[in-house]
Amino acid sequence: MNVLIVHAHPEPQSFTAALRDQAVQTLQSNGHEVRVSDLYAMNWNPVASAEDFSLRENPEYLAYALEQRHNSKTQTLATDIRQELDKLLWADLLILNFPIYWFSTPAILKGWIDRVLVSGICYGGKRFYDQGGLRGKKALVTVTLGGREHMFGEGAIHGPLEDMLRPLLRGTLAYVGLEVLQPFVGWHVPYISAEARQAFLVSYGRRLESIESDEPIQYPRLGQFDDRLYPLAQRQ
Amino acid sequence: MNVLIVHAHPEPQSFTAALRDQAVQTLQSNGHEVRVSDLYAMNWNPVASAEDFSLRENPEYLAYALEQRHNSKTQTLATDIRQELDKLLWADLLILNFPIYWFSTPAILKGWIDRVLVSGICYGGKRFYDQGGLRGKKALVTVTLGGREHMFGEGAIHGPLEDMLRPLLRGTLAYVGLEVLQPFVGWHVPYISAEARQAFLVSYGRRLESIESDEPIQYPRLGQFDDRLYPLAQRQ
Repeated sequence: MNVLIVHAHPEPQSFTAALRDQAVQTLQSNGHEVRVSDLYAMNWNPVASAEDFSLRENPEYLAYALEQRHNSKTQTLATDIRQELDKLLWADLLILNFPIYWFSTPAILKGWIDRVLVSGICYGGKRFYDQGGLRGKKALVTVTLGGREHMFGEGAIHGPLEDMLRPLLRGTLAYVGLEVLQPFVGWHVPYISAEARQAFLVSYGRRLESIESDEPIQYPRLGQFDDRLYPLAQRQ
Repeated sequence: MNVLIVHAHPEPQSFTAALRDQAVQTLQSNGHEVRVSDLYAMNWNPVASAEDFSLRENPEYLAYALEQRHNSKTQTLATDIRQELDKLLWADLLILNFPIYWFSTPAILKGWIDRVLVSGICYGGKRFYDQGGLRGKKALVTVTLGGREHMFGEGAIHGPLEDMLRPLLRGTLAYVGLEVLQPFVGWHVPYISAEARQAFLVSYGRRLESIESDEPIQYPRLGQFDDRLYPLAQRQ
């Protein structure tokens, strides 16, 4: 497989960075090709703006997604976006590797999503969920967080982690057609011992050894809905 | 009330901006004081980094939340963060006003959350949810999106909008102690008539007229959990 790891952590010595390095090593040892986008090191610009387009369809009024569609056709997207998009289209597996900030991605990674998941290529019109532009590829979310495992789940204080990550897992990754694998989670990372961290790395390495046979999470399929996207089941 | 509107849209003529202006006008007419942070106009930096702290507790290794705690005590947070934090502490009502990007906030607004909701002031230790540092204040999320209303809800293709917004409504705003009001949603905005847009503005104005009597959404309370944050109900 071709694997793109998008890494977003402000501390180069972080445990999140160790997870990135573990992934590079394990995946390469298993014969996969790996590329890494280290967003902090790249000084990635996360702000979607008019500057992302050098040939505006409508110079008077910015409709961001419409200009994405237009500028991807005319090959006039900003260079930094084009470079990331090329990596994404090259990849069979996308790994987003980050510390949870506010039950979601750090802003620098949210801005990679906002700017790189370009309308007209990654989705558009009726091309989303199982019909999304990136169908056939897979995605894995690898996160570290401060909370303990018992704080998540049904009835737990924060509810299921998958519910907190829903806009990312379902609303973003599954939306563009990616097969979304179960997230890998490093729990309580700022507070655990070096041994406990090492155990997470070993467990992550094992997970990645057999990542190709992982079953994806089930999400809606367009075939379950009519042309106006009303659920077919409601008619019965 | 003192009201802070945090506005994030790359197009100054957008309908989202019209919602902001409607809020300013209605709230001021009702005797409230209003301040606006227009993140695009301010060229807000959304990237959490070591540069946010001028006096590091640990200069060798960046633990972002720990440095927030330390630098808020020593008054050494970056000036742009301090200014936004002062507005937030001044406000009785926080309105986040933005277009939905990937079922969530645009990155520039995510970075306002990452950087301004400072550990040690807005939350920390056991001060979260109903014990959060901003308890006694309220929050309203005002969003525009491309989807139609029937695409959201139980059994709908995207599920309930509140579920997609969960990391923001519950994991962020409720987490810091804010009473979270039902979001105001402008549906299908890029595709509707000027009359339909006008109807949303009127409806938003009416909502804001009586915003002080709105009932907040119910979220977990720390009293429902033991000292280690296991749910008390499970013991019975």
